[in-house]
Amino acid sequence: MISNIRIVLIGTLYSGNIGSVCRAMANFGLTDLVLVSPVCADGWAEASKFAVHGAAVLEGRRTVATFDEAVSDCVAVVGTTARLGLYRQHVRTPREAAPGLLALASGGSVALVFGREDKGLLNDEVARCTHLLRIPTGTDYTSINLGQAVLLCAYELFLASDSYAPPCEKAPPAQAAHRLRLLEIWREMLLLIGFMTPEKADHMMQGIQRIFSRGALTTDDVNILMGVARQADWAARANAKPK
Amino acid sequence: MISNIRIVLIGTLYSGNIGSVCRAMANFGLTDLVLVSPVCADGWAEASKFAVHGAAVLEGRRTVATFDEAVSDCVAVVGTTARLGLYRQHVRTPREAAPGLLALASGGSVALVFGREDKGLLNDEVARCTHLLRIPTGTDYTSINLGQAVLLCAYELFLASDSYAPPCEKAPPAQAAHRLRLLEIWREMLLLIGFMTPEKADHMMQGIQRIFSRGALTTDDVNILMGVARQADWAARANAKPK
Repeated sequence: MISNIRIVLIGTLYSGNIGSVCRAMANFGLTDLVLVSPVCADGWAEASKFAVHGAAVLEGRRTVATFDEAVSDCVAVVGTTARLGLYRQHVRTPREAAPGLLALASGGSVALVFGREDKGLLNDEVARCTHLLRIPTGTDYTSINLGQAVLLCAYELFLASDSYAPPCEKAPPAQAAHRLRLLEIWREMLLLIGFMTPEKADHMMQGIQRIFSRGALTTDDVNILMGVARQADWAARANAKPK
Repeated sequence: MISNIRIVLIGTLYSGNIGSVCRAMANFGLTDLVLVSPVCADGWAEASKFAVHGAAVLEGRRTVATFDEAVSDCVAVVGTTARLGLYRQHVRTPREAAPGLLALASGGSVALVFGREDKGLLNDEVARCTHLLRIPTGTDYTSINLGQAVLLCAYELFLASDSYAPPCEKAPPAQAAHRLRLLEIWREMLLLIGFMTPEKADHMMQGIQRIFSRGALTTDDVNILMGVARQADWAARANAKPK
């Protein structure tokens, strides 16, 4: 349903920010961009430069004159604000709101509306919104760059949409028997090379076991560690041979 | 512990990105920035322009010649990568890793390391990292702008640090008795103005009750809705008077 999320930018001052928005949208699979009376006194060169591989989003943008035109067909109109104050205290974080907004997006377009770089959304624009988001920040500097604000909202919606398939380790995780065999081989090797005495072996092996358990070892990892022990074993025996 | 998070940028090509990083760091309360052999052929004017109110972070930066100098005192060295491939399959998302990284940061500096805009981190740099992060993206365009990548990581660490105090509604949520009284007043009014007949009243009031329950009403909200009903009631009676 993330494709039903529309990004609406109101009166944007700098086209570089529009480019950043396009890139961020492309990063998270969004394509629907509407500009409301963009100012962009700096021309459009910066937009292309910052969009990089988000150029298709930039080219597919629509430009309209008014807020109402941008959102008239939307089932939810979600304003964003860094300021608190009158009519703005019911803000939620993007993370809190994302699942509900995606559910709404299954029924039609959901507009995420971002105001001007210097003034944000005006009160009469906030009044047109069905939802208000505020990105959590530290208290000293709450104003987030426009492109970065869009990025964070798109990121939260993307994650909430479960679109992300995390990469898998190719090697399967090691099984208990495999890990146990590893410890046996290491015990033999550590005794042989004189790292520990037989009396101290149980105690020392607890330490080794703890080290090997700090991360999730794969079968490949266990095989490598076994190889180390076997080679140390071999080298120690070869060295011990009478020359 | 978020103040123990260090941002390390390797061989950055564009100073504007360094400025964006400074702003993002300031947004989330980070101050420790180390640049490793920045290229910045575009000079430093762009850095100040993009840092905006993150200028103190920019001014407080340290510049060193090598990766090792940047991280030598760190208890964890966390690489970031958009690419998958050899030595990179054990990546975790910033959200997954954030609590553990903050726990480590309670014992010393934790470096988050970001590579060049065009090539990211090299294999021998990845090999120096104790952890690897990959920001979840769509599959079509996985390369995130440097400033935006830092922003997302800082944001996740900030949220995991529980530093954010969400704003509260000033008015307390309405209590059940208050809401019940609201419905009684509306029932009387809706009957009086002829919106519904007495036979249909129970059924219609279920619809009204549902509408009033879609959001969390505050006491102020309930008082406003009561005022509407009382005024409609008054206006209907006044109108009904013989003229």
